[in-house]
Amino acid sequence: MISVVILGAGNVATHLFKAFNKAGNVVVKQWYNRSLKPIVTYKNEVEVIDDLSTLKNADVYIIAVSDDAIAELSEQLPFENKLVVHTSGGVGVYDIDKKLKRGVFYPLQTFSKDAEMDFKNVPICIETIDKKDYHILKALAISIGSPTKKVNSDQRSVLHLAAVFVNNFTNQLYRIGHEITESEGAEFDLLKPLIFETAKKAQYISPYMAQTGPAKRNDKKTIKKHLKILKNEQHKAIYKLLTKSIQFTHGTFKGQ
Amino acid sequence: MISVVILGAGNVATHLFKAFNKAGNVVVKQWYNRSLKPIVTYKNEVEVIDDLSTLKNADVYIIAVSDDAIAELSEQLPFENKLVVHTSGGVGVYDIDKKLKRGVFYPLQTFSKDAEMDFKNVPICIETIDKKDYHILKALAISIGSPTKKVNSDQRSVLHLAAVFVNNFTNQLYRIGHEITESEGAEFDLLKPLIFETAKKAQYISPYMAQTGPAKRNDKKTIKKHLKILKNEQHKAIYKLLTKSIQFTHGTFKGQ
Ligand SMILES: NC(=O)c1ccc[n+]([C@@H]2O[C@H](COP(=O)([O-])OP(=O)(O)OC[C@H]3O[C@@H](n4cnc5c(N)ncnc54)[C@H](OP(=O)(O)O)[C@@H]3O)[C@@H](O)[C@H]2O)c1
Ligand SMILES: NC(=O)c1ccc[n+]([C@@H]2O[C@H](COP(=O)([O-])OP(=O)(O)OC[C@H]3O[C@@H](n4cnc5c(N)ncnc54)[C@H](OP(=O)(O)O)[C@@H]3O)[C@@H](O)[C@H]2O)c1
Repeated sequence: MISVVILGAGNVATHLFKAFNKAGNVVVKQWYNRSLKPIVTYKNEVEVIDDLSTLKNADVYIIAVSDDAIAELSEQLPFENKLVVHTSGGVGVYDIDKKLKRGVFYPLQTFSKDAEMDFKNVPICIETIDKKDYHILKALAISIGSPTKKVNSDQRSVLHLAAVFVNNFTNQLYRIGHEITESEGAEFDLLKPLIFETAKKAQYISPYMAQTGPAKRNDKKTIKKHLKILKNEQHKAIYKLLTKSIQFTHGTFKGQ
Repeated sequence: MISVVILGAGNVATHLFKAFNKAGNVVVKQWYNRSLKPIVTYKNEVEVIDDLSTLKNADVYIIAVSDDAIAELSEQLPFENKLVVHTSGGVGVYDIDKKLKRGVFYPLQTFSKDAEMDFKNVPICIETIDKKDYHILKALAISIGSPTKKVNSDQRSVLHLAAVFVNNFTNQLYRIGHEITESEGAEFDLLKPLIFETAKKAQYISPYMAQTGPAKRNDKKTIKKHLKILKNEQHKAIYKLLTKSIQFTHGTFKGQ
């Protein structure tokens, strides 16, 4: 049995709590947040606390608070030499106070309050300063069905950065698709199956192999037509830059 | 029973042939291509031809050849006043020779040779010059399980353009994710569940509501760190431009 204390009550903390709570070999001993409000509804399932001095002994303490608050919260912990991990892609493992045994338990996924999350679709990137602490974090991830990967801080930074490209930036391309279709009275909904299929393809074909379209073919007529349709200068700039990027990748860039 | 002749033997033609061939109320009378080679393997299922003068009578002729070849092929058809449609997002309905009854049957999806395609995930955008021709195309789409939408040429152009954003450009963001992870010895595979989840979210939450991340939060520290990690100038430019675009959308842009 692995005992865990969760600190924080946001998206990640809440999803982790639910997953651990269902897992057979994990017990969530306490759930801390600086205010009880978001966790008080769980008080029949777990001891909820808002006072760090009441923290009990556990195998792993998981700090799932905003990036900027991780270091400070770790300093305030009223003990030493226990295993404390954060869940951030962008924060170093050394940002946790050095009186503690330190690690990272980074779930490489996008969480939102409402949507359920199956942790088998959440790769956990694990880092520890002391090798000995690795196995318990791995066991913890496995207990909720997650694939795991040992990832050092540089790799984690780069994964976090890549996540911005494939998640935030991709979502902004969807948003632009939404804006330009609605501006012509066309339905964004018609694009949803294509959005889904594009992501599905990436699961088994490399993005290099999957690429198609006017940019890759250097179909100048279509590109010109598209730039004419686009009214928004920022959308035009994005169109040009990503077209160029595709052409660089596929060796079809002819300069312009 | 709707009788159809398919012209062309590429991705779209092949997927349409298979779907029509399975449909209860559609008969593919002939399959034409300028060379028999890619279609000869289907000769037990359909009459395959490479000579336009042997074309038989049918309710609908579907030209699924490269955009540039549509007009010319339609001119060469040895009959008048029959319903001929193309399958392109980027070609006007008037590009089909005017001796014919003209229309468009545009499948808004990305097809590839190997991957199977369920046509319930392929919205068909229909346009006809003569209203009377609309219903047979709609019936044809319904027979293969596709949702349909009446779409005029301007709307179709804009859908095609939006498809470039959500398909080609998104796929290029995946590619960049691939490049930057592999360059640090991190695994692109770890991003695949996130890619999938991002597209899944877009099925039921608007991209506006779904957005998260450092750009939206205007988290300057993380943005600066990311720009430092990026070595490739083009990747940097894309990062900056899409960050700015997100900030414009969400009103968090503070100048730079
Ligand atoms: N969301 C994701 O998709 C995702 C994915 C992977 C990793 N992460 C990482 O997981 C961590 C948590 O992210 P999240 O999305 O769950 O955050 P969130 O939903 O915004 O919740 C933030 C939590 O941090 C607490 N907090 C903020 N400032 C604090 C402070 N000064 N002292 C104590 N607690 C403080 C908040 O407490 P109150 O409830 O009192 O405001 C809240 O419980 C971050 O490191 C993030 O980078 C997030
Ligand atoms: N692929 C997609 O995801 C997709 C999605 C929606 C719409 N579309 C549209 O569907 C149409 C077909 O696209 P596709 O992807 O199926 O194309 P494709 O796989 O590249 O196949 C092109 C076909 O056109 C034929 N062709 C090319 N030039 C020709 C010419 N001068 N005369 C006669 N035939 C010629 C080729 O014949 P050979 O076999 O002899 O070379 C081949 O059968 C295009 O209008 C495209 O815009 C494609």
